[in-house]
Amino acid sequence: VARLAFPASGRAGVVGLTGSPGVGKSSLAAALVALLRRADERVAVLAVDPSSPLSGGAVLGDRVRMQAHAGDPGVFVRSMASRGAPGGLAPAAFDAVRLLDAAGWPWVLVETVGVGQAEADVRLVAETVVVVVAPGGGDGIQAVKAGIYEIADVFVVNKADRPGADEARGHLERMLDLVPARGWRPPVVATTAVSREGVDDLWAAVRRHRAWLTQGGRREARRAARLTAEVRHVALARAGHAGAERCRGPAFDEVVARVVAGRLDPSSAADALLG
Amino acid sequence: VARLAFPASGRAGVVGLTGSPGVGKSSLAAALVALLRRADERVAVLAVDPSSPLSGGAVLGDRVRMQAHAGDPGVFVRSMASRGAPGGLAPAAFDAVRLLDAAGWPWVLVETVGVGQAEADVRLVAETVVVVVAPGGGDGIQAVKAGIYEIADVFVVNKADRPGADEARGHLERMLDLVPARGWRPPVVATTAVSREGVDDLWAAVRRHRAWLTQGGRREARRAARLTAEVRHVALARAGHAGAERCRGPAFDEVVARVVAGRLDPSSAADALLG
Repeated sequence: VARLAFPASGRAGVVGLTGSPGVGKSSLAAALVALLRRADERVAVLAVDPSSPLSGGAVLGDRVRMQAHAGDPGVFVRSMASRGAPGGLAPAAFDAVRLLDAAGWPWVLVETVGVGQAEADVRLVAETVVVVVAPGGGDGIQAVKAGIYEIADVFVVNKADRPGADEARGHLERMLDLVPARGWRPPVVATTAVSREGVDDLWAAVRRHRAWLTQGGRREARRAARLTAEVRHVALARAGHAGAERCRGPAFDEVVARVVAGRLDPSSAADALLG
Repeated sequence: VARLAFPASGRAGVVGLTGSPGVGKSSLAAALVALLRRADERVAVLAVDPSSPLSGGAVLGDRVRMQAHAGDPGVFVRSMASRGAPGGLAPAAFDAVRLLDAAGWPWVLVETVGVGQAEADVRLVAETVVVVVAPGGGDGIQAVKAGIYEIADVFVVNKADRPGADEARGHLERMLDLVPARGWRPPVVATTAVSREGVDDLWAAVRRHRAWLTQGGRREARRAARLTAEVRHVALARAGHAGAERCRGPAFDEVVARVVAGRLDPSSAADALLG
């Protein structure tokens, strides 16, 4: 199905929201949905949870803060566990974004928990990546990892009503001063998602980034880089899965029995299995 | 070379030492080497460092605490970076242990930093796994992760001269009370590696575990389980490597160009590459 959707995709504005657990990504997504609905724009939200204990598949409408939009045909919310992709975005997440895109949703918000590789992988599906942080921690900021400055198109200091919010913004701005210029300097926006303060500013920053992307072939270049990374990502996931398949069943047991009996060394056994 | 060594291996006593950074694994390894040398036993030490910035290969004799044994032909020390195995033990580590074994070293100490998968993987090379902890932290103990109780054959509370050492031992014993019995209850030994206190007790515990292993076919069963895991481990590493190889070069560029041009979807492209 996702294969058939490919030619029809590429029209949606896909915005990624990532950040450590507890910074308020879901609240921020809900506030953005409310903002878009007030402007009569349709929006789909895909929440990818790498730490979900769900055994797989998808859970519908389980996100309390989105319940204000239950029954609204202009809002689609789906959660998915990212099983099958240890530390990264599941191949199914690419398909889900593509289906929402092909189905005509003009805006798709993709929320990923900033744990391990999933944080960087959001850039593989989103045209604009919003990195959410919250005040607190050593630098006046919660856990901003090295490398995040290459991922972010927009920074949000959420929970801006808390102590340390100004320090967090200052810290981010100083770090951005040190990052090599890429033609676009990620703006740093302060929000308080629960009271919706600053959410207009955040959306304005996202729109500015999208406007910048449309100039000079940037959107096409980014799309090409994204597709290249996606092909690699899916191929590596499938190669790993195929390798795991070779490591079970009667053929595997038979090869291992020869190793245990001392008739085959483990390295040759691995080669024989991959054949 | 490692393939040729396989038939000649299986005689060495391979003892794994693992634990979080800073608990004193290297000091403990040095103290064990000194103890074995006093008993005129030869010993090889392999230190596998998953966080090493080394570009690969091995570094000889770079371990300050081992310098007491520099020039002693009864001691062999080698460090290796665990590149090529993100979060786990590199296939080269299996080969290195096998070569030392086949070369006739009666004792091989394998030291792995307890970070991510490398900690559990030490069980794939060692017959006896010593898990080292140090006093400190919330439970009177530094970072003992869930799952460690299935890995350990012997627990060591090192830096036992520090406050909290008794609490750490008590915590481990209480946890071991809750773990399902496996026929062998890991003893908890207190050591102060730098003054060599308790190191005799540690070695006695290791010998007791080895004596227990020799009964009722346990050593053979464990060896079979270890070889099964090794074959799987090496096959998965090679499958991942082979997948990565397919994702570069002119053939990859050509397939990606078709995706970017909209003539092929990413999922079919991945299949074509793995073909």
